[in-house]
Amino acid sequence: MEPALGEIKALTFDVFGTVVDYRTTIVAEGERLGEARGFDVDWAAFADAWRGRYRPSLDRVMRGELPWTNLDALHRAALDELLEEFGIRGLPEGEKEHLNGVWHRLQPWGDSVVGLTRLKTRFVLATLSNGNVRLLVDMAKNASLPWDLIFSAELSQAYKPDPRVYTMALDLLMLEPNEVMMVAAHQNDLRAARELGFKTAFVMRPLEHGPHAVPDLTADPSFDVVATDLVDLARQLGV
Amino acid sequence: MEPALGEIKALTFDVFGTVVDYRTTIVAEGERLGEARGFDVDWAAFADAWRGRYRPSLDRVMRGELPWTNLDALHRAALDELLEEFGIRGLPEGEKEHLNGVWHRLQPWGDSVVGLTRLKTRFVLATLSNGNVRLLVDMAKNASLPWDLIFSAELSQAYKPDPRVYTMALDLLMLEPNEVMMVAAHQNDLRAARELGFKTAFVMRPLEHGPHAVPDLTADPSFDVVATDLVDLARQLGV
Repeated sequence: MEPALGEIKALTFDVFGTVVDYRTTIVAEGERLGEARGFDVDWAAFADAWRGRYRPSLDRVMRGELPWTNLDALHRAALDELLEEFGIRGLPEGEKEHLNGVWHRLQPWGDSVVGLTRLKTRFVLATLSNGNVRLLVDMAKNASLPWDLIFSAELSQAYKPDPRVYTMALDLLMLEPNEVMMVAAHQNDLRAARELGFKTAFVMRPLEHGPHAVPDLTADPSFDVVATDLVDLARQLGV
Repeated sequence: MEPALGEIKALTFDVFGTVVDYRTTIVAEGERLGEARGFDVDWAAFADAWRGRYRPSLDRVMRGELPWTNLDALHRAALDELLEEFGIRGLPEGEKEHLNGVWHRLQPWGDSVVGLTRLKTRFVLATLSNGNVRLLVDMAKNASLPWDLIFSAELSQAYKPDPRVYTMALDLLMLEPNEVMMVAAHQNDLRAARELGFKTAFVMRPLEHGPHAVPDLTADPSFDVVATDLVDLARQLGV
């Protein structure tokens, strides 16, 4: 571990894409639903379209075009549009709600539970996610993610990369920015944290957008750590 | 388990006195400090006096005589007065801060970790404490308390029994009051939760105030469960 990293007390984690693999989970649940109900749908395209609505939805909230709306409700509004677009008709309300809940049941990447469990022995581990608290706690229980704390954009009523989300975490942790490391697979999230003085760890998740996507994994050279996964992060932090 | 309790999804816990034994921990740390530094102090009286400042301090915040002040800072202000009162002079600032941190290191009652671990298999377990988030997460890591969520008065900027603390928990859990059970050794805490529709579990902690206190353990008959400890609570909830 670099000497400058020795002062780190807590790690804050982006969750969707960094810790859990939303695409694979949504495709798998979609395919089961399609078989059971006889829908012929390209579920990979459906998953990508659903995730594609994410940033525009958050931006509408942050521009004030929508009042504060939690991620479950934003996911649901997007789902209702996508069911129409993909020609999925006649799904009972209970099944729509269940499908919307797939975000609570996302499966972790293979290294996540092992890596977090190691990191937890040395650091306070907190989510710092745009997911709402209920979504994140359901996910943690379902996937055995050993968080010490669930921090959510919901607590600051602002979505990342708004600085209020990161400063809320610092306030509640009672730590200085250089004592906290933001961990994410998304460079804009890390840059926003770094602006406030956080340490940063970029986790490469080449499969986040599926096997055919070619994401830019060239890490900003200002990041403190670049890790291939959370076990590698633990190793680099000396745990 | 009573049929009416079958709808419970989450348990929210008072912490000081209900899950951890502040008095014994403070006395033990005080005695070690006294021996090391040669202070002749009645540490049981000191612990009782420190805890005795708790409610008046919270009340000053809630009456608006103090701006929002977290519990660490209220504990510290009380500590500075008590060091004077008990004639403990010349303690370096670092040792005062360390002593104030004893609230982060409180030891659980003997049944707490076993009981919580059982309850966690069925329910979402959240603190709902007047302790600040940092205090509660340090305590959880130190004492191996397996919380799913750390909810604190700090998140609502109001102290129990103010209803805003309890409604904050309901909002974040996205649950109806009858789906949440408040667990506490203090009847005023349970009555405040019950007013809002929470289920209630009274946990008897006859030793909270020490071996010579004679607390009133006659439970309000409106409580849903009266338990001798957290293992008994798990048993009564069918876990």
